[in-house]
Amino acid sequence: MNPDVKQNDTNLNWQVVAPGVWRAVAGEDNYVSLLGTIGVPPRTEALAGLGAAELPFSKDEIGWKRARGNLLLALPLDETEKLYGLGLNFDTLNQRENVRELKVDHYGLYDNGHTHAPVPFYVSDRGYGVFVNVAERIKVYAGTTHPTALPHPPIYDRVTDPRWRGVSVSRRVEMLVPGAGAEVIVFAGPTMLSAVQRFNLFCGGGCLPPRWGLGFWHRVPMSFNAADTEAEARAFTERDFPLDVIGLEPSWHTAAYPTTYEFSPARFPDPRAFVDTMKRQGIRINLWENCMIHPDCRLGKQIRPHSGDYYAGWGGLIADLALPAACEALAAQHDREHVAIGVSGYKLDECDGLDPWLWPDHAEFPSGLSAVQLRQMYGVLFQKLTTEIFRKRGRRTYGQVRASNAGGVSFPYVIYNDCYEHRQYITGVINGGFCGVLFTPEVRGAHSPEEWLRRVQAVCMSPLAQLNAWANRVLPWSFPEVADAVRDVMKLRVQLIPYLYSAFARYRHEGVPPFRALALDGCLPKTEEAYVQGKTDDTANPYARALCRDIRDQYLMGDSIMVAPLFAGEQQRDVVIPRGRWYDFYTGQFVGEDTVIAVSGKHRDIPMFVRDGGIVPLLTEARNQAPAPGATMPLEIRHYGEAEGAFQLYDDDGDSMAYEQNDCCWLPLAVKRGAQGKLAGSTGPASGRYHSTYRIDQWRFMPGRP
Amino acid sequence: MNPDVKQNDTNLNWQVVAPGVWRAVAGEDNYVSLLGTIGVPPRTEALAGLGAAELPFSKDEIGWKRARGNLLLALPLDETEKLYGLGLNFDTLNQRENVRELKVDHYGLYDNGHTHAPVPFYVSDRGYGVFVNVAERIKVYAGTTHPTALPHPPIYDRVTDPRWRGVSVSRRVEMLVPGAGAEVIVFAGPTMLSAVQRFNLFCGGGCLPPRWGLGFWHRVPMSFNAADTEAEARAFTERDFPLDVIGLEPSWHTAAYPTTYEFSPARFPDPRAFVDTMKRQGIRINLWENCMIHPDCRLGKQIRPHSGDYYAGWGGLIADLALPAACEALAAQHDREHVAIGVSGYKLDECDGLDPWLWPDHAEFPSGLSAVQLRQMYGVLFQKLTTEIFRKRGRRTYGQVRASNAGGVSFPYVIYNDCYEHRQYITGVINGGFCGVLFTPEVRGAHSPEEWLRRVQAVCMSPLAQLNAWANRVLPWSFPEVADAVRDVMKLRVQLIPYLYSAFARYRHEGVPPFRALALDGCLPKTEEAYVQGKTDDTANPYARALCRDIRDQYLMGDSIMVAPLFAGEQQRDVVIPRGRWYDFYTGQFVGEDTVIAVSGKHRDIPMFVRDGGIVPLLTEARNQAPAPGATMPLEIRHYGEAEGAFQLYDDDGDSMAYEQNDCCWLPLAVKRGAQGKLAGSTGPASGRYHSTYRIDQWRFMPGRP
Repeated sequence: MNPDVKQNDTNLNWQVVAPGVWRAVAGEDNYVSLLGTIGVPPRTEALAGLGAAELPFSKDEIGWKRARGNLLLALPLDETEKLYGLGLNFDTLNQRENVRELKVDHYGLYDNGHTHAPVPFYVSDRGYGVFVNVAERIKVYAGTTHPTALPHPPIYDRVTDPRWRGVSVSRRVEMLVPGAGAEVIVFAGPTMLSAVQRFNLFCGGGCLPPRWGLGFWHRVPMSFNAADTEAEARAFTERDFPLDVIGLEPSWHTAAYPTTYEFSPARFPDPRAFVDTMKRQGIRINLWENCMIHPDCRLGKQIRPHSGDYYAGWGGLIADLALPAACEALAAQHDREHVAIGVSGYKLDECDGLDPWLWPDHAEFPSGLSAVQLRQMYGVLFQKLTTEIFRKRGRRTYGQVRASNAGGVSFPYVIYNDCYEHRQYITGVINGGFCGVLFTPEVRGAHSPEEWLRRVQAVCMSPLAQLNAWANRVLPWSFPEVADAVRDVMKLRVQLIPYLYSAFARYRHEGVPPFRALALDGCLPKTEEAYVQGKTDDTANPYARALCRDIRDQYLMGDSIMVAPLFAGEQQRDVVIPRGRWYDFYTGQFVGEDTVIAVSGKHRDIPMFVRDGGIVPLLTEARNQAPAPGATMPLEIRHYGEAEGAFQLYDDDGDSMAYEQNDCCWLPLAVKRGAQGKLAGSTGPASGRYHSTYRIDQWRFMPGRP
Repeated sequence: MNPDVKQNDTNLNWQVVAPGVWRAVAGEDNYVSLLGTIGVPPRTEALAGLGAAELPFSKDEIGWKRARGNLLLALPLDETEKLYGLGLNFDTLNQRENVRELKVDHYGLYDNGHTHAPVPFYVSDRGYGVFVNVAERIKVYAGTTHPTALPHPPIYDRVTDPRWRGVSVSRRVEMLVPGAGAEVIVFAGPTMLSAVQRFNLFCGGGCLPPRWGLGFWHRVPMSFNAADTEAEARAFTERDFPLDVIGLEPSWHTAAYPTTYEFSPARFPDPRAFVDTMKRQGIRINLWENCMIHPDCRLGKQIRPHSGDYYAGWGGLIADLALPAACEALAAQHDREHVAIGVSGYKLDECDGLDPWLWPDHAEFPSGLSAVQLRQMYGVLFQKLTTEIFRKRGRRTYGQVRASNAGGVSFPYVIYNDCYEHRQYITGVINGGFCGVLFTPEVRGAHSPEEWLRRVQAVCMSPLAQLNAWANRVLPWSFPEVADAVRDVMKLRVQLIPYLYSAFARYRHEGVPPFRALALDGCLPKTEEAYVQGKTDDTANPYARALCRDIRDQYLMGDSIMVAPLFAGEQQRDVVIPRGRWYDFYTGQFVGEDTVIAVSGKHRDIPMFVRDGGIVPLLTEARNQAPAPGATMPLEIRHYGEAEGAFQLYDDDGDSMAYEQNDCCWLPLAVKRGAQGKLAGSTGPASGRYHSTYRIDQWRFMPGRP
């Protein structure tokens, strides 16, 4: 029993809700539940598949009490424990020693809890997770508080004692939840990854994008009409650059700020013909919109009684998406005017904030939810609404959104962000894996060919490979010095679709995030130290705060590939090579084992490494679009290193919802050593009803250790 | 009547509390008043001196209603009105179109209301001010909200209509005040400056530092003992650099984190002798401390029953400074061990936040104030406590503090900040003038001699000229290339003391901020435009937010001097020359009138300009210390330009509290044109009981227009 948590008044009554998952309500039962309001059921069967496990502490160590209109939860912490998650942060991985106010908001340059997806979930490196299922701005004190009723923390002299640190060790997490009640759900491990899997499956399981969603995306300028857009697609073909999806920006509507959601007859006189024309070239159309409904359009008149009592930003009505009537009106309009004619999905902008764009905290909505509660869920409610439109038509969608939260994991949306710091973008990709969201480091512009290349490379190894450079009209070939390297990585992205699609299938079926931190797989180097005391620096670090040596510029993509992006302007970068042997993705050469290597900033390709025994299925030939449903997919199966390996290759029709009824296929791939010690590949019996169109052309054994 | 504010339920009952000042309580009378809790009386007589004036709107346009445990205030806005203030911001001057949550906090890279002094006061360029006298985290919607009960704002197409802007015009300010009641105080102008004067005087009037406080300050490293510190002072003398005050950092105590407030016998075996030795060289000692009391020291044991129920950051007790018993214990210890032996003041660190350093929002204190309420006032309560110790001994103090709020204006403390962006620092100096606080752009380090020079120059033209480079040991002469220029500006600072001291006397007596925005004096150029639509930029400004053309890198110092600092690495800078003729401070040459001039980044001295007819009294000779009390002060009185001018030269003993009993002197200086059209200077009859030791040696008429 951790002595630092005994101060709380009341213990909780825990119920088992799935193997290794417990639930309790602190205080009153009148909290607004994220999952309940959004309405996503747990993936019960998949949860059962993970089996039971125990928590590394006694649940009696979790307590609560009331605190002036709030509810205070306290949870135990080990002395050196690390905490990950608490939403989509962009600077930090380990959240210990920080205080975060979890508010859905525009991200504002540094981590403080105000972010696009402030998911109230953390996972500990001791192998468990904690989720507070409440739609409020929860304030989390992640190992910073010291009640005077308990012994004070050890005191060290700042001048003479090297043990002095920027924050004294606290052995408790405290969470201040507005209101009188809160639902707490804890997830056993035994590993961090298994705790995250349980969380993801409890929240509905990961999303499975359509196969075309994993191709390359591009967005056209605001002024573009149908003909301009068609010409843009031809330009990609003529120059031999991949393209699967084109996104339209504020321009396709009769009005955008606020939005009518109606095609402009001037720019798109025949939307159905336009969408069809594009589709015949294999290009899907994605539509930008925001959540502010033009009060004078047809939908606006319909939605007014189901809206909040404040217009948002540019004078738009805000539909109360907790009301079925509001959702039905929006869904009917979107279905009729977009989905029915073949539009593939949406980019939902500005539903996170800034505060001046959205409704104020004191707005009232007809559902009775507070303005704050609704804002915490608005992005997820929109994701659900639109996903359901496609589902009813038996189709999948994939899109972008500015806001999410717990409960969003099953919806096929990727978060994007207006900040544009490349390192923060990579940290965002990594942090998404701790909290059930996806983030795209989309490319919007560059100050140099080098920056352009580095950004395109990174986005091609992310959940959504998108160019969002409509504002300044940079195109993949705009920097001739790097156009070939840009084309190569875009084509590699498409070739990797079988590998990536299988990773997303694991997300859907087992809750394993397709993009994630090294720490989440426990494949940190032995040399990794829990804390490294920062050096005093009168400007950057005057307090010598204890800096955690987070590895926040490299990540796992699927189970076998580690990506270590290069950043413009840097002569070289360090790459942490975790325990186990690792190999260069391109050459198969051994690069190291539990070490740090330097990679030159002049390296043409994005540095990627494969773990020993890693199996990577690729489309045999470079191509510009994801294979269409039913098309044969010739594969090269690569194996790296010397160890035996296995891979579950996933397939389905790539576009419909049939996979939800087991109309899919899992094909086991294995590499084993034969009698002469020679590696050989084989496939096991496929499971699932779908007849895969994969065709294995080649098992390719990368050279390995010379 | 502004039609956009009529939605509110309830009008207020206004009382006149001083000429041009009205007060009303919205909702219940149980709010925690900032001024009431801090206990600062209004400067009634001085307020009366400003005379009566009317508001530019009807007070009936201000309304309130309840909003789920909060109180919502709504106030009118003109279509083009600008709002300044809302605390110590570092990026923006005009706060219109922003939402701010006013929280005492460490400043975190961008303006969001979380800052060292989130004063709930704004002043409008229509010439009035609004103050919400409540110790809560007030959320201010400064012209961003649009109730649906009112007509929606004009809607413009983003693609085709140039009138589209990042935020639609709202004609109301809304403030969400936690709790059931709020005191609202409005201040008439007719000018912005007079509204600010009324606010400052209502809050107790500006502070008057001791004369030595306006000299040069330096802080020594943590490891320094008494002998090291004495040697440091000698080094300044030997190299002929000004020095009035030395600050000791975490090192002088027996323990610093948390703090004992007791001199370390090892480093300072005889504190009284040390302070005396320094004093004989004219050097005052300032002591760093934080607000976290070591639980095991004598004071800690005494203070425990008067403390909060959480230790802060490093395990220290937090005294409940709303309790007289806590203040008395702290004051008695500080008086006995510091003030009585001659220590001159304090630097109170970390009382703003970060959140992990301070008590959590759910801490409880014996006074019954909430943790949030106490945090909003903690810095001011400490300022008052320490100021009173000195006052009881008949002495003035001057120091630094990390947190302030309304009610702090009368206490002689200057705010400092861990961020280190030079432009933000200058904007901080300017914004202090809108809300009754002072800010020092202290110098902590530099990456080049140029940066060193530019930073020292700016700090020498600020409320407190301090080097705070103890962590990295940069000294004024550390960059030999610029050592002479650094010495010159430090000496100029000391020479300017009569001018600066008179400016502070106006702060004290009339509420006029000694450092302030051009906008506050209404001396903007005619070419200044209310709003300039920003250019769309896919990274920095993707929304083309309406950017206000704030002049946030140049400011007024006293009534006649305009300072336009240079920043390292810039080839040149623009300087806005306001209406009226302006002259170069150094040469007296005419530089322009209602225009923008370019100043080369290679200019050796800090660009300063004097308005036509401006009178600037300086000490005749360059010197290294502020004149001691009673010492004769030979003066050169400079006059600039061609216009006649006047100046109220202030004097008192420079160190005691006698000035509060009118033991001071106002000497009118005037420059008039004689019969032959020649300018001549004269002094009027002095008022006040103090016999000034100023001696006018020279009236110097700067060349003016050639």
